[in-house]
Amino acid sequence: MRRPRGPAESGAYHRRSVASLIECVPNFSEGRRPEVLDEIVQAIGQIDGVTLLDHSRDETHNRSVVTFAGVAEPVVRAATAAVGRAIQLIDMEKHEGAHPRIGAVDVIPFVPLGSTRIEECVDLARRFGEQIAKLFELPVYLYGEAALRPERKRLADVRRGQYEGLKAEIGVNPDREPDYGPSHLHPRGGAVAVGARKPLIAFNVNLASEDLALAKRIAHTIRESSGGLPAVQAMGVLLENPGERRHAQVSMNLVDWEKTGISRVVREIRQLAREAGTDIHHCELIGLAPTGALLEVAADALGLRGFSPDQALELRLARER
Amino acid sequence: MRRPRGPAESGAYHRRSVASLIECVPNFSEGRRPEVLDEIVQAIGQIDGVTLLDHSRDETHNRSVVTFAGVAEPVVRAATAAVGRAIQLIDMEKHEGAHPRIGAVDVIPFVPLGSTRIEECVDLARRFGEQIAKLFELPVYLYGEAALRPERKRLADVRRGQYEGLKAEIGVNPDREPDYGPSHLHPRGGAVAVGARKPLIAFNVNLASEDLALAKRIAHTIRESSGGLPAVQAMGVLLENPGERRHAQVSMNLVDWEKTGISRVVREIRQLAREAGTDIHHCELIGLAPTGALLEVAADALGLRGFSPDQALELRLARER
Repeated sequence: MRRPRGPAESGAYHRRSVASLIECVPNFSEGRRPEVLDEIVQAIGQIDGVTLLDHSRDETHNRSVVTFAGVAEPVVRAATAAVGRAIQLIDMEKHEGAHPRIGAVDVIPFVPLGSTRIEECVDLARRFGEQIAKLFELPVYLYGEAALRPERKRLADVRRGQYEGLKAEIGVNPDREPDYGPSHLHPRGGAVAVGARKPLIAFNVNLASEDLALAKRIAHTIRESSGGLPAVQAMGVLLENPGERRHAQVSMNLVDWEKTGISRVVREIRQLAREAGTDIHHCELIGLAPTGALLEVAADALGLRGFSPDQALELRLARER
Repeated sequence: MRRPRGPAESGAYHRRSVASLIECVPNFSEGRRPEVLDEIVQAIGQIDGVTLLDHSRDETHNRSVVTFAGVAEPVVRAATAAVGRAIQLIDMEKHEGAHPRIGAVDVIPFVPLGSTRIEECVDLARRFGEQIAKLFELPVYLYGEAALRPERKRLADVRRGQYEGLKAEIGVNPDREPDYGPSHLHPRGGAVAVGARKPLIAFNVNLASEDLALAKRIAHTIRESSGGLPAVQAMGVLLENPGERRHAQVSMNLVDWEKTGISRVVREIRQLAREAGTDIHHCELIGLAPTGALLEVAADALGLRGFSPDQALELRLARER
C-alpha cells in the first residue's frame, strides 16, 4: 500500500558498469553420435566464465545445437574451442541429414542478452570469424546483422546449394568467395556461417480446432513474408500427440520481439481464430526467451502503467551485480 | 518453429551450486535529514558483495527505507554497518513522525530472493539479531517468520505503544522482554525488530470509477483479514493527481504471491468491478517485485502450458552463473 514515489525522494544508489552478456548458439552437423556432442559440450563448458544453458541433438537432421552465454572474451574462447573440437570429430564428407548445412560447425550466431546491443555482437562475430578462419584455415561467411555483403544477410542464401553445392562453387564463383579464410573448403570441416542476430522466441499457439487449413491461413496472414506482422515467421501445422487432443497449431519464430512481441501475435491470432468460429486453446514457449519479452506480456495483460523491467527484482539484481 | 523436446534429447549441462540471494530492507527513523540517509546508504554500499537496489525517504513519516541484496555474509555485514551508523546519527529521544517506530533502526526484515528458502532468512535474522544485540547493547525483538514467541509474529504487536510505550514497559513487563540484548532501551537507538518475511508486492488497481465506497467494498471483500484471499492486505483509497482523472483505487500488499498472485487478485477485482457496473482502468506496480510473480502473470495471460521460470533467459543465466 506504498505510493509511487517521485524521482527526487528515491532512486538506485549507483549503477556499477557491467560487462555485456552475449549468448552463442552454435549448430553442429552431428546428431547421431551422442559422444561427439558430449565432447563438444565439454570443450565449451571447461572455459571459465561461460555458462552452458542448453544442448539438444536431432537424429533426423543429424544435427545438434548448444546454447551458452557469458561476456565477450570467454564466449569467444568457448566458441573457438568448440570449432576446434568439431572439425576434429565431424567429417563433412561423410555427413548426411535432412537439414541444410555447409560445415561441421554449420552456423555460429552471437545474440545480445539483457541490455547488450546488437552492434557489440556484430563486432564480436566479425572479430571471431577472422580469428577462426586464420586459426583453422576455415572459410567463414558472415551473415545476419554481421553480414558484410547485403546478399549474405539471409542464412538461407549463404547456405544455397549447401555443403555439396558450395564445394563445387567456392574458388570458382566470385559470389561464393568467403569473407575470411581460404577459397576452398576445410577438408573435414567444410565452411562456417558466423553471424549476429537478436534473440529468437519460438512460440506456438494451439487452436481449439483440428482445422489445419485454418492454422495455415492464420500463419499466412500474420507472417512478415506474406505482408503480416514485422519480424514474425509462422507456419500452420497439425499437432498430434498420442493420447491427447489434436490441435491445429500456428508455430512461430519471433525474430525481433521488440518489433512484434508475444502479446501482439496472440491478440492477432485470437481475433482471426474467433472470426473463424474457434479460439486459442493454449500456448507453448519452446526453449528460452528473453525475460523482457515475458515481462512485456505481464505488463500488457495487467494494463500496467509506468512499468519498467527494472522492477523485476532478480533481473535488476543480476544487472547490478 | 522448434518442437518441444523430450528430456532424453536435451538438457542443461550442469548446474553450479549458487549461494542463496537475500534481500534486506531496513527502515530508519529519519526522513528529514537527507545527509543522514546518505551516510547510512554509504555504510551499506561500501560492503563488497552487496548491491544497493533502492532507497527512499519520507518527510511526513520522518522515516527512510533502504533495499539491498547479496548472499548472507555481506548482507549481514552491511546491515550491521547500517545499525552502527544509524544509532550514532539518529537520537530517538528527539524523533517525531507519523509512522509507528521503536528505534533508530526500526525494523530489519530479511527476504528470500530467487530460489532461496525462507528458512535461511529465519536463521540469518536470529543470528544477526543476537550479534547486534551484543555488539551495540541494543534490545532486539524477533518478528515475522523469525519470531520466537507466537505473539511477536505480527510487527504491529511488537511495536505496540511504540518507542515511548516500550520505554515505559521494557524491564518492567515480562511480555516486553527482548529476545536478545539488554532489558532497557539503547540511549539513542531505542530497540529494533529483526525478522524474516517473504517478498512483498505493492500493487494497486485503479478503477474506471471515482466511487471510493466501491473501492473500499472491494478491498474489504478481497483482503484476508475480512475473510477474503489469503496473504492479501487491501484498502480502498481515492487517487487524486492534479490534472489527471480521479480513480477509486484498491491498494494492496500481496505478502505471499505464491499463495495469492497478481493475476488472481486482478481477476477477482475485475469481476467485482464489473458487477458494480464499472471496470479496471489500469494497474500499478510499486517498487520491486519478484520476477517469478511477474512471469506467472505472463504464463497465466497466455495460457502457457508447461512453462517454467527457467525459460526466462537472463533469469536462468543469473541463477547458473
